[in-house]
Amino acid sequence: MRRFFMLMCLVCLGLAGRVHASEVTSPNGEMKLTFTLRDSKPYYSVSFRGKPVIKPSRLGYELHNAESLLEGFTQTGEKTSTFDETWTPVWGENKTIRNHYKELLVGLIQEKTGRVMNLRFRVYDEGVGLRYEFPQEGSKLNYFVVKEECTEFALTGDHIAWWIPGDYDTQEYEYSRSRLSEIRPLFKKKVTDNASQTSFSETGVQTSLQLKTDDGLYINLHEAALVNYPAMHLNLDDKNMVFRSWLTPDAQGIKGYLQTPCQSPWRTIMITDDARKVLSSHLILNLNEPCKIKDTSWIHPTKYVGVWWEMISGKGDWAYTSQFPSVKLGITDYAKAKPSGRHSANNENVRRYIDFAAQHGFGGVLVEGWNIGWEDWFGNSKEYVFDFQTPYPDFDIKALNEYAHSKGVKLIMHHETSSSIMNYEKHMDRAYQLMKDYGYDAVKSGYVGNLIPRGEHHYSQIAINHYQHAIERAADYKIMVNAHEAVRPTGLCRTYPNLIGNESARGTEYQAFGGITPGHTAILPFTRLQGGPMDYTPGIFEMQCSNGSRANSTIGGQLALYVTMYSPLQMAADFPENYEKHLDAFQFIKDVALDWDKSIYLEAEPMEYITAARKAKGSSSWFVGSVTGLKPHNSTLRLDFLDKGKTYVATVYADAPDADYKTNPQAYTITKGLVTAKSVLKLHSVAGGGYAISIVEAKDTKGLKPLK
Amino acid sequence: MRRFFMLMCLVCLGLAGRVHASEVTSPNGEMKLTFTLRDSKPYYSVSFRGKPVIKPSRLGYELHNAESLLEGFTQTGEKTSTFDETWTPVWGENKTIRNHYKELLVGLIQEKTGRVMNLRFRVYDEGVGLRYEFPQEGSKLNYFVVKEECTEFALTGDHIAWWIPGDYDTQEYEYSRSRLSEIRPLFKKKVTDNASQTSFSETGVQTSLQLKTDDGLYINLHEAALVNYPAMHLNLDDKNMVFRSWLTPDAQGIKGYLQTPCQSPWRTIMITDDARKVLSSHLILNLNEPCKIKDTSWIHPTKYVGVWWEMISGKGDWAYTSQFPSVKLGITDYAKAKPSGRHSANNENVRRYIDFAAQHGFGGVLVEGWNIGWEDWFGNSKEYVFDFQTPYPDFDIKALNEYAHSKGVKLIMHHETSSSIMNYEKHMDRAYQLMKDYGYDAVKSGYVGNLIPRGEHHYSQIAINHYQHAIERAADYKIMVNAHEAVRPTGLCRTYPNLIGNESARGTEYQAFGGITPGHTAILPFTRLQGGPMDYTPGIFEMQCSNGSRANSTIGGQLALYVTMYSPLQMAADFPENYEKHLDAFQFIKDVALDWDKSIYLEAEPMEYITAARKAKGSSSWFVGSVTGLKPHNSTLRLDFLDKGKTYVATVYADAPDADYKTNPQAYTITKGLVTAKSVLKLHSVAGGGYAISIVEAKDTKGLKPLK
Repeated sequence: MRRFFMLMCLVCLGLAGRVHASEVTSPNGEMKLTFTLRDSKPYYSVSFRGKPVIKPSRLGYELHNAESLLEGFTQTGEKTSTFDETWTPVWGENKTIRNHYKELLVGLIQEKTGRVMNLRFRVYDEGVGLRYEFPQEGSKLNYFVVKEECTEFALTGDHIAWWIPGDYDTQEYEYSRSRLSEIRPLFKKKVTDNASQTSFSETGVQTSLQLKTDDGLYINLHEAALVNYPAMHLNLDDKNMVFRSWLTPDAQGIKGYLQTPCQSPWRTIMITDDARKVLSSHLILNLNEPCKIKDTSWIHPTKYVGVWWEMISGKGDWAYTSQFPSVKLGITDYAKAKPSGRHSANNENVRRYIDFAAQHGFGGVLVEGWNIGWEDWFGNSKEYVFDFQTPYPDFDIKALNEYAHSKGVKLIMHHETSSSIMNYEKHMDRAYQLMKDYGYDAVKSGYVGNLIPRGEHHYSQIAINHYQHAIERAADYKIMVNAHEAVRPTGLCRTYPNLIGNESARGTEYQAFGGITPGHTAILPFTRLQGGPMDYTPGIFEMQCSNGSRANSTIGGQLALYVTMYSPLQMAADFPENYEKHLDAFQFIKDVALDWDKSIYLEAEPMEYITAARKAKGSSSWFVGSVTGLKPHNSTLRLDFLDKGKTYVATVYADAPDADYKTNPQAYTITKGLVTAKSVLKLHSVAGGGYAISIVEAKDTKGLKPLK
Repeated sequence: MRRFFMLMCLVCLGLAGRVHASEVTSPNGEMKLTFTLRDSKPYYSVSFRGKPVIKPSRLGYELHNAESLLEGFTQTGEKTSTFDETWTPVWGENKTIRNHYKELLVGLIQEKTGRVMNLRFRVYDEGVGLRYEFPQEGSKLNYFVVKEECTEFALTGDHIAWWIPGDYDTQEYEYSRSRLSEIRPLFKKKVTDNASQTSFSETGVQTSLQLKTDDGLYINLHEAALVNYPAMHLNLDDKNMVFRSWLTPDAQGIKGYLQTPCQSPWRTIMITDDARKVLSSHLILNLNEPCKIKDTSWIHPTKYVGVWWEMISGKGDWAYTSQFPSVKLGITDYAKAKPSGRHSANNENVRRYIDFAAQHGFGGVLVEGWNIGWEDWFGNSKEYVFDFQTPYPDFDIKALNEYAHSKGVKLIMHHETSSSIMNYEKHMDRAYQLMKDYGYDAVKSGYVGNLIPRGEHHYSQIAINHYQHAIERAADYKIMVNAHEAVRPTGLCRTYPNLIGNESARGTEYQAFGGITPGHTAILPFTRLQGGPMDYTPGIFEMQCSNGSRANSTIGGQLALYVTMYSPLQMAADFPENYEKHLDAFQFIKDVALDWDKSIYLEAEPMEYITAARKAKGSSSWFVGSVTGLKPHNSTLRLDFLDKGKTYVATVYADAPDADYKTNPQAYTITKGLVTAKSVLKLHSVAGGGYAISIVEAKDTKGLKPLK
């Protein structure tokens, strides 16, 4: 209703003309957005501190079987407003978040067709959000089909970019740092193998895309609030350095099906001269809708262990048997199958993990491979691949849940869908109900392999709607969702905080698939994590995998990730027996908090280093983490964020001087001492390493000396 | 297991050679099937009473991204066997059904690839079933993708065919009677408009296809047990008069995704010199698997009335309001909407139907348009079109169900999906649960418009799997399913007898869409009904529709349909007020049974006339129906099927001599008299008309005279 009223006001203003420019600046005046209608075509541009950052860039749509929404527009009005609100996330990096922007709403009508396309711009101190809005009232647009969204991001030069290849089906690539002009020559080499992948252009890249200009500006392009719309990629015109939106198509090559009143997701442009501000920004969350779940009491951050790294690293299997060339659920008789002896999700092993979790204070135990169907679970375009209900013969779902609950631990459910989303939807209610029946309250879902319905993609509108359905339906059952291989998040966890995690990037598993180049975890917070937390599954202490792969990291670096990779869901991914060899270092994982009152980014440069400090929610304790890329890093940490006048005990878990991510990854030092807000710590991280610090208000300082 | 064993036997036999012929004849010896491997290519042929009917015809597959399964085969063995069993359907035309055939199983291996493709032929006295079987053991075939099934049906001449255009999305066409050679020139004209339609070839036709040779043989081609496979069309090579299978593709143009062990549906060829035998045959049912539902006590034939013809004929609407240009479920506020005043599914009107049903002994009242979303329900490629749960403001689901139950009547649920099968699957469990909560035990589902997932078709494998899922999941909830616009049935109601109806052809609604040409109901039992009952919704007494259309039928002809169109689900489709004007004729609809101990087809010629007699289950009463096509028909009915020595009261509802389906459709006569097994009745039907007779064992013959 409010929207209709606003539109009517716009229409009443009745502004029109060949060229018209409208401006809006950020609250602090440094960011300026200009909207222009030039020869009836809509453009926008953005400047920061008076310097152009986004040059005049086209806006509009090509439609399927209908005249485009690119030109022929008249401006019907404009409205500026200011918004300033502080909200409290259910969980997050900070106790409260300020949402402060100036807004410009531009009314446009395509006179010839009577179709209305309004543009809403929100300008923050650190960036801009813009979206298309299609009202129903007063417009001749009702249902329409998108051939392409034509949003441009015209850059001012051949910037540095940290990019991964544009792909309709995966984001599990390593990041490349290159000039924009180098994307094309590098592209093919950067498309490494994945179980499902579809690139579309040799200058196509994904969002969130991190850029840096030669004069030191950090630009980040992404989207916020991706709902009922295909995910956006960016395709570079590398002659003119203009990115254009490139939506993910459906099986017929069509991009989107829209019905008024509706809007596009927000297209976001973050601009700052301080890399740390990219990390501390809440632009994406702020552009999402407030929480839609009324009772959120059941949503809780969780630290967990699990039967997962065994399979990933080659020690065990998801499958129960190696006897069947293929499986038909309901027909294949597992009771008669010969176990392979490699099935990790067996009663005894799961009990071992439950015991370990209980002993060390972990809330959850993830068990993958508990349910029948893993013998031929992907790569076969098999529709009915899992039923999400029937355990393997050696997984006693009732007894194991009872055992876990008796020890104060919850099992975490696993729903690998093999990307057969039609099959998952057929079984979803039963699957969620089974979880409730046995007392699971969180599920890790997976979308490995090509999508079914066949020809659709992981980031097509129909898949976006599936992920959204899974989240909303889970909320009906009070279930938390951690979706892997789903679309990269766009801040929807604000609206649906039961979306406690996503993968949607190259995660720790790639340490067991040949290793991850150091620096990966120093770019992810700039890119993938902009949209929401990642279930990165850190904590590898034994770098040598059974399958021969080696993790490129140090124990110090692994500990740091619990702070630098913000997530309300944190796994200690390694085996209990590997932690038991290093219980002193493991103590940090046990101690580190999951939810925070305050987060500060102390140092940051994409792919090189990130140092973060976070204050635990409802506590005076702080935790610091620092990761490095391919170069060693020296930190000079001023602990001036600590409460003045208080004395704290700091425990520093650092790379030993002789640590080396390739040859000596388990070399760490643990130093304990007293610190205050006046302390300055000098710390060294090796390449591919890092450090972690717990800082706890001192109750007993006996025998402790100040740290230097 | 048994299959594996059989295969091993075949392999052991180790037959091989350049040309090898195998034969099997029907139990009575009249039907003969010959299998030949010629130049390593498999062929079959069929003869009837020594005359070739199907000439040597190729068998095999083209595969996607793999070598074809068309040649290079060696015969590994063969096995013949005889089967003779009598089974009892949960409901049906006969109390018991005999399944008597001789079988030939041919083992084939493609030496070069090690892939096994066995062929199973079942030869009945009235026809042949053949299917491909792909074992897993001993074969190098596991997962495979079908480009095309290459089954041929090589005919002996330019036969007469009763055909409808081949189409991936609809069977709602009128039948044409023409020579095979005339299909191509007639084709385009025969593709009449439908909400979703996709023809593929100007000589493509659908099954069940009825043919007649110049020497009087009736040939019928269809398929049985269509499960996890796309529906088959037939494409005619009209130079050589060879039909080839043409499967329905998916969104990518691929036809099927198979996993061994598996088999194709049965391809059926019925051959007889007596048209009545086509109608009385149970070939299709016999080729389906036995009932898989253990407790069938909740499945019951039902006679029903409903709020449906009001909307179809233009008196009312499904939609509640005409105020909204489009609807978004969960956002559009119906409470504030202005009712159009044309919404038929309102409390008062539904109560009226409940009262009428209770008064006249109907078990069900179907209510369409009860749930929100109908304002823009099809043609918009809208994914979330219905929630199947939220009633319109003027439909009190609780009160109406309570009212119905208090009167001994059940409401029948309606789930129009608008072909958004992904949306239906998302809501299916909730929708079925809501039915149970309110005491519904049957659902009419609908699939109008283009399929979502977009690009898939109504008869694609993914849609077949959806319909199957809906049936099986409904059985879990003890719900009976009557699916409209779904794939035409293939006898699956034997296996899942909760599939109590289907539409999948031009039904009575087309009487309100311009009228149906007489003869339609005299071809449907030969074609569409071969696979299972049709919810034809007969019983129109007032031929003039509010929308200006006229039904091409007489009241006599309408009554006949309750016998000639076998269905365990029979609607009296017209308005209560129209029946109240003709309560004497309506009496037949009230009296006629729904389930039968015995069915006899007395007269039949495709599209011209069908006369059937059926004995009510567990009763001595018989019911006779006769429909005619475009020509009047005179029947000489020998009632020798009646119990000898018994006297019955027959009530004959016939076209009056001056009845005319165009100008005088409501002219009927009702004659009551005594009959015995020796009676011979001479009856006249006008064009587009018919008659119906109830024959009840006489308790009181007072005042009644023998009928002549």
